[in-house]
Amino acid sequence: MINAIILINAEKGAIQPLAERLAEVPGISEVYSTCGRVDLVAVARVADFEALSQLVTVRLNEIEGIHDTETLSALKVHSRHDLETMFSVGL
Amino acid sequence: MINAIILINAEKGAIQPLAERLAEVPGISEVYSTCGRVDLVAVARVADFEALSQLVTVRLNEIEGIHDTETLSALKVHSRHDLETMFSVGL
Amino acid sequence: MINAIILINAEKGAIQPLAERLAEVPGISEVYSTCGRVDLVAVARVADFEALSQLVTVRLNEIEGIHDTETLSALKVHSRHDLETMFSVGL
Amino acid sequence: MINAIILINAEKGAIQPLAERLAEVPGISEVYSTCGRVDLVAVARVADFEALSQLVTVRLNEIEGIHDTETLSALKVHSRHDLETMFSVGL
Amino acid sequence: MINAIILINAEKGAIQPLAERLAEVPGISEVYSTCGRVDLVAVARVADFEALSQLVTVRLNEIEGIHDTETLSALKVHSRHDLETMFSVGL
Amino acid sequence: MINAIILINAEKGAIQPLAERLAEVPGISEVYSTCGRVDLVAVARVADFEALSQLVTVRLNEIEGIHDTETLSALKVHSRHDLETMFSVGL
Amino acid sequence: MINAIILINAEKGAIQPLAERLAEVPGISEVYSTCGRVDLVAVARVADFEALSQLVTVRLNEIEGIHDTETLSALKVHSRHDLETMFSVGL
Amino acid sequence: MINAIILINAEKGAIQPLAERLAEVPGISEVYSTCGRVDLVAVARVADFEALSQLVTVRLNEIEGIHDTETLSALKVHSRHDLETMFSVGL
Amino acid sequence: MINAIILINAEKGAIQPLAERLAEVPGISEVYSTCGRVDLVAVARVADFEALSQLVTVRLNEIEGIHDTETLSALKVHSRHDLETMFSVGL
Amino acid sequence: MINAIILINAEKGAIQPLAERLAEVPGISEVYSTCGRVDLVAVARVADFEALSQLVTVRLNEIEGIHDTETLSALKVHSRHDLETMFSVGL
Repeated sequence: MINAIILINAEKGAIQPLAERLAEVPGISEVYSTCGRVDLVAVARVADFEALSQLVTVRLNEIEGIHDTETLSALKVHSRHDLETMFSVGL
Repeated sequence: MINAIILINAEKGAIQPLAERLAEVPGISEVYSTCGRVDLVAVARVADFEALSQLVTVRLNEIEGIHDTETLSALKVHSRHDLETMFSVGL
Repeated sequence: MINAIILINAEKGAIQPLAERLAEVPGISEVYSTCGRVDLVAVARVADFEALSQLVTVRLNEIEGIHDTETLSALKVHSRHDLETMFSVGL
Repeated sequence: MINAIILINAEKGAIQPLAERLAEVPGISEVYSTCGRVDLVAVARVADFEALSQLVTVRLNEIEGIHDTETLSALKVHSRHDLETMFSVGL
Repeated sequence: MINAIILINAEKGAIQPLAERLAEVPGISEVYSTCGRVDLVAVARVADFEALSQLVTVRLNEIEGIHDTETLSALKVHSRHDLETMFSVGL
Repeated sequence: MINAIILINAEKGAIQPLAERLAEVPGISEVYSTCGRVDLVAVARVADFEALSQLVTVRLNEIEGIHDTETLSALKVHSRHDLETMFSVGL
Repeated sequence: MINAIILINAEKGAIQPLAERLAEVPGISEVYSTCGRVDLVAVARVADFEALSQLVTVRLNEIEGIHDTETLSALKVHSRHDLETMFSVGL
Repeated sequence: MINAIILINAEKGAIQPLAERLAEVPGISEVYSTCGRVDLVAVARVADFEALSQLVTVRLNEIEGIHDTETLSALKVHSRHDLETMFSVGL
Repeated sequence: MINAIILINAEKGAIQPLAERLAEVPGISEVYSTCGRVDLVAVARVADFEALSQLVTVRLNEIEGIHDTETLSALKVHSRHDLETMFSVGL
Repeated sequence: MINAIILINAEKGAIQPLAERLAEVPGISEVYSTCGRVDLVAVARVADFEALSQLVTVRLNEIEGIHDTETLSALKVHSRHDLETMFSVGL
């Protein structure tokens, strides 16, 4: 499983509907509307690197209301939880 | 449940051990070592706002190897998963 | 009571009317037009986290004249004043 | 009454004790430990401009644990509350 | 007398006429077109804080050709000159 | 007369004494301790460009308590005042 | 052989087609769509400095979908590979 | 002779023609199209400060294709060459 | 094969020896000393994501002379060259 | 001839002596102490790219008093002057 944290700024007036739209995108497990420097943080959990590439360079480009994104791809995950089983990615 | 995404830069040479230490802190469910502008992204999932305050203003201040942090507290979560049950917060 | 400090830049020519409009939004107790890097600082004092979420992600998005906002949610308040009683939040 | 919002970054490990020390400084009515780009936000409410000058250029310089500050002095306050009476400034 | 240094970026092609227009605004004693990160620096010298507020939040908003401004309000002045008499403010 | 606006950040704890020291430097007519992104703004008014060069590259380098400076040299001055006579530069 | 690493941000929705178009430009050997602060990284490997100049100041200016670029020209290459033969530049 | 280094970003697609136009402006001795954070660096060598002022605040404002400029005016020149004679300024 | 472009700033005086040391690290195929905002650009070409993680979070942390790094991991490569065969990764 | 504009910040107190030291380095034709965001601008005019590489990655690293540098290498020069003859580079 490949994880990535995607920092997103929405276009003016679009935070709420954008968050809902993103949460329905396959491969995105959670979307947080946040306080601070960015509007939304999306967590991607996908089966492999090709899927992450598809998600970031193609899928996110098609979604309306995104102003800009910055993807932080995870090199390693440290957790007491078995995230892979919990999110049943790629099954 | 209150979620927060914490962007963390480690002190030089400290990324790996810091990630392991953070992953054991109660309230932090996952730590990602990431490519890009920050070294680590920690996800906090705690029972209430008081617990987040304690985690960010007290606990993280005591951990060695942190250079700086920026906490993005989540106002709302959008997910097809029942994150609260999955991470059994506050039990 | 949840407090948040909201740093706001107004659209060109909109500082004064925007400040007046913001000051009437329920949940916002004070709006300061300020010198320096931001045009306005609004202080939100709401009953709970859900109300802050509603205020920041929905209400502020509907108000005209805002260029961008950055919300600093308060984890803890230190004051010799009893702010909660003073601002009678959520009554 | 002159109001100012002071954005403060604490030195490493100093957030909590600094917040407590600041809250006791005459002229500072509230200190918020916040999520986001700054560690603390202090609100100054003083009798006149001379007092703000004294607070920012002298008093804050003597307090330990401050890394840097940025003062946003308020040009005008918009509020449905009578802040001046509430905070009994200058008495 | 309240002094403030106002850093101003002009809209494209507007530096010269903007400088002339600003120099005629009551309360602005000098306008410098400068090398470096900003196009113009205006010095405001007004009778009291209310006048500065009026100047920055109302008057400057009405002037054409301003791209953005950042006001640095002076807390204290150190000078071997008697600036107040020299600029006869508020007379 | 050559004018320059010098934005100055002081070293920790040094704002007040630095302002006083700067105000005594020949060629500096005024020093403002300011709210906002910089600690001090000094205005230099000197007889010619050579004097400004000497002031910025030599004199300011010898003064204790300066963290960093950014000099905005004035290309042109717009003012209803006769600044040159008022500040009697080069006498 | 002159190498240069070109950091590129694409216009909204243009990442994928832009990457394909860039990869066909003579002199550009590889285009990477990347996570992080930039959308694309192109590696230019050309016969001489004149060719790099032509590529950056003329060719890239004609390609649609580029928002901005930052060219890092290589002063020296350190590699166990014989890059010049491998990429047969300028033949 | 007054020298100034002018950092220039061109509007999209305009680097090459802008460089040529700038190189013909009296007072600008050289224009470099550069790799890195800026598109062009122009070197101004003029007879006096008034000429620099005219060049930067009037002439450059009339030229098409400039996105933004930042002028670094030279306080002093250190060179084994006699630049003034070489560039015969003010003749 | 996973590619990553690593932007590196060296510690003062360390550019040349650091470039040589990096070029010998398994997984790093090329190191460019560059003009511009960063000192060095290293290209990593490794067999899989685990190897990139090991390289960035462990190996680079052990190398002397690095001030800071920013890793841009490649989601997709566009090239007329068969990079994988050329660099014989993972053999 | 290869030209490069090198933006330099000096260490505290070192501007003047650093400028003099740099002006004596072979390959550097002029050093300007400047107003604005950088302390010094050096212009390098060398015979070929290898010489620029040697200058930037080796020579400048050995000079005391430099805080940081950013090299803008010139891709093309536009000038009514014959700079190559004037500066007799590579003789």
